[in-house]
Amino acid sequence: MKVTQALLSVSDKQGVVDFGRELAALGVKLLSTGGTAQALRDAGLSVTDVGDYTGFPEMLDGRVKTLHPKVHGGILARRDLAEHLATIDQHQIPRIDLVVVNLYPFEATVAKPGCTLQDAIENIDIGGPAMVRSAAKNHGSEAGGVGIVTDPTDYAAIVTELKSNDGALSYKTRFELARKAYTHTARYDSAIANWLTAVDADKLEPTAAPERAAYPGKLQLAFDKVQDLRYGENPHQTAAFYRDLSAPAGGIAGYTQLQGKELSYNNIADSDAAWECVKAFDAATPACVIVKHANPCGVALGADAQDAYRKAFSTDPTSAFGGIIAFNTIVDAVVAEAVSAQFMEVLIAPTYTPEALALLAAKKNVRVLTCALGKISQTDYKRVAGGLLVQTYDDAVLTPADLKVVTKRAPSDKELADLLFAWRVAKYVKSNAIVYCKDGTTVGVGAGQMSRVDSARIAKIKAENAGLSIPGCVVASDAFFPFRDGLDVLAQAGATAVIQPGGSMRDAEVIAAADEQNVAMVFTGYRHFRH
Amino acid sequence: MKVTQALLSVSDKQGVVDFGRELAALGVKLLSTGGTAQALRDAGLSVTDVGDYTGFPEMLDGRVKTLHPKVHGGILARRDLAEHLATIDQHQIPRIDLVVVNLYPFEATVAKPGCTLQDAIENIDIGGPAMVRSAAKNHGSEAGGVGIVTDPTDYAAIVTELKSNDGALSYKTRFELARKAYTHTARYDSAIANWLTAVDADKLEPTAAPERAAYPGKLQLAFDKVQDLRYGENPHQTAAFYRDLSAPAGGIAGYTQLQGKELSYNNIADSDAAWECVKAFDAATPACVIVKHANPCGVALGADAQDAYRKAFSTDPTSAFGGIIAFNTIVDAVVAEAVSAQFMEVLIAPTYTPEALALLAAKKNVRVLTCALGKISQTDYKRVAGGLLVQTYDDAVLTPADLKVVTKRAPSDKELADLLFAWRVAKYVKSNAIVYCKDGTTVGVGAGQMSRVDSARIAKIKAENAGLSIPGCVVASDAFFPFRDGLDVLAQAGATAVIQPGGSMRDAEVIAAADEQNVAMVFTGYRHFRH
Repeated sequence: MKVTQALLSVSDKQGVVDFGRELAALGVKLLSTGGTAQALRDAGLSVTDVGDYTGFPEMLDGRVKTLHPKVHGGILARRDLAEHLATIDQHQIPRIDLVVVNLYPFEATVAKPGCTLQDAIENIDIGGPAMVRSAAKNHGSEAGGVGIVTDPTDYAAIVTELKSNDGALSYKTRFELARKAYTHTARYDSAIANWLTAVDADKLEPTAAPERAAYPGKLQLAFDKVQDLRYGENPHQTAAFYRDLSAPAGGIAGYTQLQGKELSYNNIADSDAAWECVKAFDAATPACVIVKHANPCGVALGADAQDAYRKAFSTDPTSAFGGIIAFNTIVDAVVAEAVSAQFMEVLIAPTYTPEALALLAAKKNVRVLTCALGKISQTDYKRVAGGLLVQTYDDAVLTPADLKVVTKRAPSDKELADLLFAWRVAKYVKSNAIVYCKDGTTVGVGAGQMSRVDSARIAKIKAENAGLSIPGCVVASDAFFPFRDGLDVLAQAGATAVIQPGGSMRDAEVIAAADEQNVAMVFTGYRHFRH
Repeated sequence: MKVTQALLSVSDKQGVVDFGRELAALGVKLLSTGGTAQALRDAGLSVTDVGDYTGFPEMLDGRVKTLHPKVHGGILARRDLAEHLATIDQHQIPRIDLVVVNLYPFEATVAKPGCTLQDAIENIDIGGPAMVRSAAKNHGSEAGGVGIVTDPTDYAAIVTELKSNDGALSYKTRFELARKAYTHTARYDSAIANWLTAVDADKLEPTAAPERAAYPGKLQLAFDKVQDLRYGENPHQTAAFYRDLSAPAGGIAGYTQLQGKELSYNNIADSDAAWECVKAFDAATPACVIVKHANPCGVALGADAQDAYRKAFSTDPTSAFGGIIAFNTIVDAVVAEAVSAQFMEVLIAPTYTPEALALLAAKKNVRVLTCALGKISQTDYKRVAGGLLVQTYDDAVLTPADLKVVTKRAPSDKELADLLFAWRVAKYVKSNAIVYCKDGTTVGVGAGQMSRVDSARIAKIKAENAGLSIPGCVVASDAFFPFRDGLDVLAQAGATAVIQPGGSMRDAEVIAAADEQNVAMVFTGYRHFRH
């Protein structure tokens, strides 16, 4: 069934004139409204106004234009039912076979400075979504149906199909357009509901920007599928990976895979941990992070990427086996050769030299990814049974001004540099986290423990097992010491300086323990729990 | 402004006749359609059919009934603008001040066995959402506006307000109804988009149940806020807690708090871990789980709840300090007294005796929760930067038939019972997990390590620190041993039996190590990674 008549009414006018011209050239009659009609007319196209078409004038400042049986009957009549077609004929309602409508993003309305409640409400489109939904419902079957175009990037393909398919759209195309259309309206109303259910209903003032809670009463989230995964965290679980609608550059979700096997669920989770951690270091200082089971098992700064890798690997060669390796700088042939000596699951860097890629190609299974270095600040979600914990991202960054020396001895400049490094690493280690560092290198990473003193012990044991020397190390603790025992373990192992949030009821006891053992200690004033 | 005319068109007819009767008694004219009109008329109410009202007959099998300017003009005319009111007067369009519409849940349509693509599409409501959205947009201001009722449970309050407010609805009520309405349409179209974007577009057959992917191309999720939280995982993060729209009984999201301070973000996350773990044990066998930093630091079965607690506590008294304590059985006064001897953040059980609650009341700060014991099977989400990993729940449960004895020596009955216990606990310990157990009690929990051999070492050290004896213990490993070193650590510590998935390239080496040391080992065939 040929497209005989199209209705165009778009907020985003990109490409609509060209599209209208192509449709007109194909003999399609054009119906339109307001600014879209004007744009088409300005381009010299012949357009019928919907008001003239329905015989019912546009009224109420445009609130009621297309909500009319002549529009919706023309859209909704089933093309496969003779009685439907006869009914619209009888009512002199011509078919509308193509509906081109897109909605002004509600988020953009309310993002405007000072947007009042009334502005927000006034910008909610009523006629548009009704047409989109009507047309999507009647996308039809092989016998014919309506094409609903909500995305300007689809215009070109539609023109191509109409030209090559005798002026008609295939069932498959109409179906795909229809589900895109329902996604469009779902997300449109989701944005409205998210915004409105955060408004303080006790302080309604239409002409003012409303007071809003940080978290809406009704939360609607939307994601686009990137890929199905072979399985989930375990092989008996199914899984898929989704991207935010406006995913920030710099997140793992924006990865590009250059070679290697398909990414697994755990690859993505671990790559995220590695990438977030390595990005925490200024790109001017080459850094390397090796992650295993979502925890960094080695982190180091280096004179160059190879040096950073060598040091990061030295922290825990056992755990590094099968790990995820991330760099905040270009990977060249020297680095590619160095990392190729170990078994790795994933390699991530902002970029690679051609020589490095040629070398890596020999390791066919290794997943080689590029990712942007941008910082992330997004909403964080944690699933619990029957619910979702939602929070802002932990984007606290320590400045030297935050530091408070609490011991008699202040850290030396060298200790201070290592303390800042250790603190940055500790943020990415699962709590309770204790991280021993020396010379911009992790020496022992105590992760995921239920007691802080155990983390302190483990980090020491791990350092010893790796043949590393603790005396002269500094230590970061992601949260305060509830008792002096943890601090004692560190001091007795030979650590000379400690960085931690402070804030324990027993801070005095912990400070005294540090002073007794000549440990320099600084408080940050905030913690970095990460579970 | 008094409500003069109402339009009722509901899928869920619960309470609508009574509501219509109350409206009629208040002098409100009733407009209606189809089955709703019939139900009102059957109750003796005077009702105008929308078709008669618009003068445009219902057509296309009901597809176009209310999509008419006389309906939408009557809804959308701004009550605060004289020219709007004059316009509708001129077109002889009476105001519609109350719109009562709810939509048949799309999920229910597609859940029907054998629901075809055509059935699904045919059940998408077009006129209903258009009215809901029009009415919600024009909820108005203090000067008046439209009330949009999408939830039958709101009828009673609306009648009460109309009666006490001279037949009018307040601005605040109309606003609250409006945002509920947009939530309703957002979720309606979200369900449609979720379903349609999973359909295989290469195999479209309208009269068949379509082939669908497990994960839709466009994913829309929706949650209802339970509470704002004081802060997130850390005090510099803001947070809120949300519940699934149909939260399963048995999840932490269904908690009831009986006393104590407000739950924090970490309390909820830890309570979830504790509750999911303790529910894994049959309620007929009293079990206790103590969680700290999202990991069980002690789990035990007991002759009674007190016995289970005493044993669970013994595993790691250091970590238990400030922990979350969960029981799968009633907490009585004896248990309440026992747990009160330690510092705890949260106590969770299916129920408490009045005496227990009286005792706990003395510990004002302790959060005492009840939760249902039901099993959960939900979709799991994991946030990464810019994206979301989605997977099915890890609901694998080991049956004796899954077990394969791989060593010369088979486990004794006592070892087998402890192995099954240990395996169940290991599922809830963060990977890599190594759990030593004896007599239905955890003896050492090695959690969250980047290498399995470190988990084995840690669990042993923790047992020693707690003064517990390892010889005679059994051990669960949540995933296979990549090398024999981990197994050697366990055997040398005195463990006599091991349960693990198997499946390593070096299984033969690991089995040989077990045989050498007379360790009985069973394979489960599947792992329990949990990160």
